[in-house]
Amino acid sequence: MTGRYLEDYAPGQTFVSGRHRVDLAQIQRFATQFDPQPFHLDDAAARETLFGGLAASGWHTAAITMRLMLESEMVPQGGIIGAGFDELTWPRPVRPDDELRLHLEILEVRPSRTKPDRGMIKLRTTTLNQHDQPVQISVGNLVVPRRLPAPRGI
Amino acid sequence: MTGRYLEDYAPGQTFVSGRHRVDLAQIQRFATQFDPQPFHLDDAAARETLFGGLAASGWHTAAITMRLMLESEMVPQGGIIGAGFDELTWPRPVRPDDELRLHLEILEVRPSRTKPDRGMIKLRTTTLNQHDQPVQISVGNLVVPRRLPAPRGI
Repeated sequence: MTGRYLEDYAPGQTFVSGRHRVDLAQIQRFATQFDPQPFHLDDAAARETLFGGLAASGWHTAAITMRLMLESEMVPQGGIIGAGFDELTWPRPVRPDDELRLHLEILEVRPSRTKPDRGMIKLRTTTLNQHDQPVQISVGNLVVPRRLPAPRGI
Repeated sequence: MTGRYLEDYAPGQTFVSGRHRVDLAQIQRFATQFDPQPFHLDDAAARETLFGGLAASGWHTAAITMRLMLESEMVPQGGIIGAGFDELTWPRPVRPDDELRLHLEILEVRPSRTKPDRGMIKLRTTTLNQHDQPVQISVGNLVVPRRLPAPRGI
């Protein structure tokens, strides 16, 4: 991998991703395995619910977001290692044939206080549909390696 | 569905789930599709990383947690509709052949201020492995229907 080190990130930096089109078969396949609720499986049943029509599982949107993030230029050296999230919301349903893409923004960059070889970045990830509407917003923390310091003197 | 209404929840209530054993093939299949990083796919490559050996994608653990939650007695009437998470962390890797189960605790129960037919519950979900160690902790908010008030007297 040829990703970025902690020193390569700065608050305010932004990145974008490629696009992924989510079709009905993908939504139903994910839901069958992990989130088999009527509003993720059957459009007629979904119309009677809060969703007003078939919608992808939020965990499916989260998994697609992960995949898109891995293909972006934000990726740290060594890969994306999430330490956890401060926030994860789904402001709007993902519908069959929506085309998703990411807007990524670095919020904080912090060297570790105890481990000189790494640090953390805090990142806001907004997953947008083809109408530029957010369908997922997360604020997460990633573990990122530092460049090793130059060896001392001579 | 025959789930619970807002009035059936109270802070401090706890629920448990069944168990799910995660095998190597499941971990690799999920990772191939959504999180194709070496530490989720190949044990030898994973040994060189922070994970120290092959580990499931955190999003796979989250998806399994969703499935286990759906099979628990916590399920609200109408299903599990997540409004978002205040916290989501993976304190420890999930390894091939780990057996996962949930401990669920209701933290808050709030009627909606604007919509008389619903409310929210705040829920801490701890996903445990077979050694009773937490592998995922989340604090999330679910939309839950209220029992309709009795019609006013004639």
